[in-house]
Amino acid sequence: MDSLHEILVNKPDIRPLRASLATRSVEIVDQTRLPGALKIVTLSSVSEAAKAIRTMQVRGAPLIGATAAYGFALALHADPSDSGLRQAYALLLDTRPTAVNLRWALDRVNAVAGPLAPLSRAEAAWKEADAIAAEDVETNLAIGRHGVALIERLAAAGRNPVQILTHCNAGALATLGWGTATAPIYVAHGASIAVHVWVSETRPRMQGARLTAWELRESKVPHTLIVDAAGAMLMQQGRVDLILVGADRVAANGDVCNKIGTYEKALAAQDNRVPIYVAVPSSTIDWTLDDGSRIPIEERDAGEVLHDGGGEAIAPPGTQVANPAFDVTPARLLTGLITERGICRATAEGLAAMFPERCP
Amino acid sequence: MDSLHEILVNKPDIRPLRASLATRSVEIVDQTRLPGALKIVTLSSVSEAAKAIRTMQVRGAPLIGATAAYGFALALHADPSDSGLRQAYALLLDTRPTAVNLRWALDRVNAVAGPLAPLSRAEAAWKEADAIAAEDVETNLAIGRHGVALIERLAAAGRNPVQILTHCNAGALATLGWGTATAPIYVAHGASIAVHVWVSETRPRMQGARLTAWELRESKVPHTLIVDAAGAMLMQQGRVDLILVGADRVAANGDVCNKIGTYEKALAAQDNRVPIYVAVPSSTIDWTLDDGSRIPIEERDAGEVLHDGGGEAIAPPGTQVANPAFDVTPARLLTGLITERGICRATAEGLAAMFPERCP
Repeated sequence: MDSLHEILVNKPDIRPLRASLATRSVEIVDQTRLPGALKIVTLSSVSEAAKAIRTMQVRGAPLIGATAAYGFALALHADPSDSGLRQAYALLLDTRPTAVNLRWALDRVNAVAGPLAPLSRAEAAWKEADAIAAEDVETNLAIGRHGVALIERLAAAGRNPVQILTHCNAGALATLGWGTATAPIYVAHGASIAVHVWVSETRPRMQGARLTAWELRESKVPHTLIVDAAGAMLMQQGRVDLILVGADRVAANGDVCNKIGTYEKALAAQDNRVPIYVAVPSSTIDWTLDDGSRIPIEERDAGEVLHDGGGEAIAPPGTQVANPAFDVTPARLLTGLITERGICRATAEGLAAMFPERCP
Repeated sequence: MDSLHEILVNKPDIRPLRASLATRSVEIVDQTRLPGALKIVTLSSVSEAAKAIRTMQVRGAPLIGATAAYGFALALHADPSDSGLRQAYALLLDTRPTAVNLRWALDRVNAVAGPLAPLSRAEAAWKEADAIAAEDVETNLAIGRHGVALIERLAAAGRNPVQILTHCNAGALATLGWGTATAPIYVAHGASIAVHVWVSETRPRMQGARLTAWELRESKVPHTLIVDAAGAMLMQQGRVDLILVGADRVAANGDVCNKIGTYEKALAAQDNRVPIYVAVPSSTIDWTLDDGSRIPIEERDAGEVLHDGGGEAIAPPGTQVANPAFDVTPARLLTGLITERGICRATAEGLAAMFPERCP
């Protein structure tokens, strides 16, 4: 894409996190308030950062990682001792169980700051958090550049617009900018390729309806909202050309843990021969797991299912609820993975060939 | 089931419609108000009956059929002329497009009342509506008796409780009593077979959360509410032994049109080898359709998706919405159909063998 620079320049700048070393504070968009209000919250301590992750004011694997990195730096500013470091690491790691970027970001900061004398730790940690944030934008742009080839091919084959389905929010709001699943869409849109996005609403927290619809609207990308259960029918009717989703953790064999409902989308994609790609930065790949079977699945509060956004009870009071937030899509159902290095098959071999340094 | 009589006697009597010839009125449970309020509405005219169907105060294929039959009788009481008859038929047929029981019930009443002298039509129509209602209860009990064998077999194989997943509401509230998909569950529960029901909430109108959870609670059947997208993951984890759903229309080859999301459940069932049966009275079978491709799919209002139950906007204002209410599950994905005559394969041959008089 020769025009990538212009695309970047012209792109509405959706950045859900901005950090300032001068004031030692991190400003975030409170994503629990979107789309009704664009409220900025300032995080000044590790406990505020941990709370922002836990309450999902920030969410999305890459953004969780970056927020945790800054939270770690804030902690080391307040207490750079060895015990302070250990406590902050444990506090932040405990906020959410599924996204592996959280541990990855904390380990990066720890590797840099841990060996230093306590008084040098905070500044080094902040710099590492800045690096994680800056790299995330570059990573997502690379994902966009690789992924747009899939969209270009469909457009060249006559799809006008190219119909793309996504689930949950793996968008700019889930990252430091551009998003993972949305990066190819934004690059295509910026290059004037006609795209239309089916936005799966994503019960129970409605990140598709609340966040993806919001940011696509801000970016002027045509889109249509559907309930989660309607995706398969659209595929059956030939109204979906491509599925792009993100992930919270990818195992070394290509099994993908992502928002609950991704597995159903992949089954429908297979049944209707719709290509389905998972867009992930390499920080989302958990090389310690041979497959997806041992990925911890967060079980969230029953209230998310029992009540609608207005607080009204949907089901009878006291109804028992199961609320798993993620599922694991077997690699066999996926067409491929899009990483910052390129597109590969969702197999151990595909991933190993793309990241040979991780698979000696 | 020798104890069926006791089961019947002990069963909480959930009947969403009661008709009285003496007062020429039909009392219905306003299902848009459940589970918050158990409000009874009286229908005294064909326009009130049509409105009750259109606004989904009554819903579910068998209940739509019975309500339309009584609405037809109310119309003939007010205007038994040929033109009155034609207008009432057209008005009622136009209320909802997908459930074939509507046309079936109107045709039954028309066949009985149409040939009579106008002054005899209303009473004959009412009697036919009464017959449709009474037969529906018998039909559902027969479905329950046939279907419980599947549950008994799983219990005998050591499943304790037998884990059954259902989608939407094909329960007592969708019929004149007992339900279609729920009839085998109620019969099993009455016979003290331990069952547990996964209730898929069924966006956007939440008939699973609002109606199925309500009637299972009333009937003291253990159950757990989940978002629609969680069903596949439960199957993957081996936590579903059997899927039972209803249908709005079944084609002669066994293709099943049911609430949006049923197709995804069937795909997940196939991927995880979970048996999936569709429970239907024969009045739901559309013998005029060779397959499901020409079943009209109702597209409902965007507001159902855009707003939650409390009226709060979920997505940004003006967001474009697609809201198909039903999908078609290919017969190849189904384990079988449960009808009042027994269980058959979801194939043209299976249905023809069970209903030879329809396939000469």
